[in-house]
Amino acid sequence: MPMLQSIKWQDGSVYILDQRLLPEKIKYIKCTHYKKVAHAIENLSIRGAPAIGIASAMAVALASINLKVSNSYMLLKKLKPVFQRLINTRPTAVNIRWAVDRMKNLIEKNLNLDVSELKDLIINETLKIQQEDIEINRKIGQFALPLFKEGCTVLTYCNAGSLATGEYGTATAPMYLAKERGIKFRVIVCETRPVLQGARITAFELMQAGIDVTLITDNTAGALLRKGIIDFAIVGTDRTVRNGDVANKIGTYTLAVLCKENKVPFYVAAPLSSIDLSISSGDMIPIEERASEEVTRLKGVKIAPEKVKVINLAFDVTPAKYITAIITEKGAFSPKHIKYINSKKSEKLRLKL
Amino acid sequence: MPMLQSIKWQDGSVYILDQRLLPEKIKYIKCTHYKKVAHAIENLSIRGAPAIGIASAMAVALASINLKVSNSYMLLKKLKPVFQRLINTRPTAVNIRWAVDRMKNLIEKNLNLDVSELKDLIINETLKIQQEDIEINRKIGQFALPLFKEGCTVLTYCNAGSLATGEYGTATAPMYLAKERGIKFRVIVCETRPVLQGARITAFELMQAGIDVTLITDNTAGALLRKGIIDFAIVGTDRTVRNGDVANKIGTYTLAVLCKENKVPFYVAAPLSSIDLSISSGDMIPIEERASEEVTRLKGVKIAPEKVKVINLAFDVTPAKYITAIITEKGAFSPKHIKYINSKKSEKLRLKL
Repeated sequence: MPMLQSIKWQDGSVYILDQRLLPEKIKYIKCTHYKKVAHAIENLSIRGAPAIGIASAMAVALASINLKVSNSYMLLKKLKPVFQRLINTRPTAVNIRWAVDRMKNLIEKNLNLDVSELKDLIINETLKIQQEDIEINRKIGQFALPLFKEGCTVLTYCNAGSLATGEYGTATAPMYLAKERGIKFRVIVCETRPVLQGARITAFELMQAGIDVTLITDNTAGALLRKGIIDFAIVGTDRTVRNGDVANKIGTYTLAVLCKENKVPFYVAAPLSSIDLSISSGDMIPIEERASEEVTRLKGVKIAPEKVKVINLAFDVTPAKYITAIITEKGAFSPKHIKYINSKKSEKLRLKL
Repeated sequence: MPMLQSIKWQDGSVYILDQRLLPEKIKYIKCTHYKKVAHAIENLSIRGAPAIGIASAMAVALASINLKVSNSYMLLKKLKPVFQRLINTRPTAVNIRWAVDRMKNLIEKNLNLDVSELKDLIINETLKIQQEDIEINRKIGQFALPLFKEGCTVLTYCNAGSLATGEYGTATAPMYLAKERGIKFRVIVCETRPVLQGARITAFELMQAGIDVTLITDNTAGALLRKGIIDFAIVGTDRTVRNGDVANKIGTYTLAVLCKENKVPFYVAAPLSSIDLSISSGDMIPIEERASEEVTRLKGVKIAPEKVKVINLAFDVTPAKYITAIITEKGAFSPKHIKYINSKKSEKLRLKL
């Protein structure tokens, strides 16, 4: 199945697919400096919680290569501002911090190595993170696959797709697997204003894979749910916290409320890297506010009055009570059990979908 | 207060403000033939249930002027295809049929007149419809005004504003009146995809009147309602039926569900001309489907993959149970009492807001 890659490590450089240009242009940005990667995360050339985690790890690797230091302790010291710069790029997704912490821990544990050996280890770790991500997504896909009954109609939001991850996506992973198995289904994709990741990216990548896609404006989902033509909804997440609340693209909360009102199951695909048990409730998740121009202009075209005030929240919080199950690489769980995900009893709490 | 007019009758021609060009350009389309008016209704140069009612009446007047007939019976006969053409322009709003029926009844009752006298009567009737509309809107505004407490925040959707009507608008009428009375309040306007009547028209006309406006994407309303910063929502309607269900711009249902979930009152401003007691339930209202290009392109710019399938419903139905009150020129009513609107007991059923 043809799947574009959102990010690649090649000959000591990072190549980032510029998703702002999709679906018209497929163009990779070559990054040889970590700051270029940080900038690409900020300006949404690359987006999606798992993908920006991988990008952050690769940025650490780029920074390491470029640092001329005599020992590993110096390398760690000089990387500290790099870690902070990457964490500051986007406040809501937890994967950046997760990836940065993983790289930092690796370095701290291997300070006995030569600088050049340590640098090799760092590069290998980024490739490992990317490979693991693909494996994780396949597992999420396998756990979600039973939801895909022959002839079903699935609703999704934003892009929790191949391009938001290493490959396969999270919410889209079962779609790719169902397609591979020849199951007939269709996907209704919300365009996802303001940046239109649904229209430009999800619709695009699913169509590339030959999946039956129908695009709607975000405000059409309610009418279709009320008509009873949607079997279930599945979305990704930028951060899932201890009480099972989920932060995801603005509008996810609305979709979850509409699903509940119409008795349609609402699933969240969440790799463990996006689960943050250090926060007790969704209302404590920092929510990124972005520039008003994302709302008032579209591809440079003005679509609102000059100087109008704008509230442009990038994410919202969906309380646990609206979520049927959270699907991880360890299986599907009721949101209220997500706090046990790392404990022994998680095995027993796993839901059968 | 500066208020642009959506439609004007002047020297035997109809001038329609081309709302597709707002907010950049203020340009009137001169129509000397009814077909040009019908086309302007279809392509959304003019929109809004009351405004397209007025436009339809004026189109009948234009057609009358242009018809060279020897007697009033012939005039009526030749107008019949004109009536049908106008009714066919847009299926959901009931105001077109209402205006056409009113013109037809007027003609049928005055077939004893000379053709030239009848033509004058027809023209006067269109001006009367427009004047009455303005009065109706002011009355709706007065009934809704008590909702506007000092410092309140109001949510609105699409454009049920001055430009959707003769003047004042329906949902916006109390905003203009509150502004005239010096009450401090702010309005949060949903952009209203796909045609962006909220961003381009409502935000524009309220800003012109000096009202404090904040624009959001449609999918942001849920997050703001959950935060508790919105005191109430008020929207217009294209058709309200016997059981109190309301058809309005796609996304209205979503907003109403979100209001209910967050215990925020949800009001519908509905002139009697938009109330259709001949239909028993909202699910029987015909819902217009429009071209996919409205979703996939914006001002000519492609924002979705080539050949993607689209569902583009122009309206949705909000069941009565989500509506706090329907506000008409006869007062505010519980949706379940709207069926008594024309009866004597309506006076007693009027709600105090």
